[in-house]
Amino acid sequence: MEYTIVDGEEYIEEIKKLDREISYSFVRFPISYEEYEERHEELFESLLSQGEHKFFVALNERSELLGHVWICITLDTVDYVKIAYIYDIEVVKWARGLGIGSALLRKAEEWAKERGAKKIVLRVEIDNPAVKWYEERGYKARALIMEKPI
Amino acid sequence: MEYTIVDGEEYIEEIKKLDREISYSFVRFPISYEEYEERHEELFESLLSQGEHKFFVALNERSELLGHVWICITLDTVDYVKIAYIYDIEVVKWARGLGIGSALLRKAEEWAKERGAKKIVLRVEIDNPAVKWYEERGYKARALIMEKPI
Repeated sequence: MEYTIVDGEEYIEEIKKLDREISYSFVRFPISYEEYEERHEELFESLLSQGEHKFFVALNERSELLGHVWICITLDTVDYVKIAYIYDIEVVKWARGLGIGSALLRKAEEWAKERGAKKIVLRVEIDNPAVKWYEERGYKARALIMEKPI
Repeated sequence: MEYTIVDGEEYIEEIKKLDREISYSFVRFPISYEEYEERHEELFESLLSQGEHKFFVALNERSELLGHVWICITLDTVDYVKIAYIYDIEVVKWARGLGIGSALLRKAEEWAKERGAKKIVLRVEIDNPAVKWYEERGYKARALIMEKPI
């Protein structure tokens, strides 16, 4: 399958929709889909309101969305340097295994470097196979997010 | 040593100073102390500008600061429920081993629970002995913060 990687700002609504569907499977608390949808919208807008954001998308020959990466330039809360935070990187199921995720990641890294970011940072759930995927691409675990129900 | 735990809002400047000194030891990038100070101030204010924040402090009989906890009610970016995020918990070196940190943590947890938070979340560096300290207090690793220099 041929694909190209281009600026993704025009696809934000579609990305939001895709992220909403995928993220719901990670939710561990019992909330209704309606409540989740509302909060997802609220969070998405709240995240977009701070920092310098960038979206890239992978498209096939018919301009269908195959995947996206959402990255944001911000100030690291531990190292106090300019960093790029990857909020999301996704490839649709039927287009996986073709290197599209890697290509999106490289594009995001190049964009961040051009803007003076010193490192790329991201969060990944501890039991997610993506941990290994990122390690293979040079990422190292730096910190843990720990939690306790109350 | 006797200590009491009270509202910490009056101590924010002192807490900021203590956090500035301690946090510098975690910085892995070569930036001057002046630059660091400026960015620390900027970050501290930026964090305080969003969410509902609370500070508690531990004081000795002479009202000297022995430790503090800084907690914030926010919306979780994965579970979409109200959570409490612990930004900082510190005890001064000469007052460690007396249970002050545990008492501050319990106070923060109580406060968060009263405000309807469903869980407490925090970030800890992967090689920090505090990981074990939190585990002993019921916290579990949920996600990894991964990074790559560019």
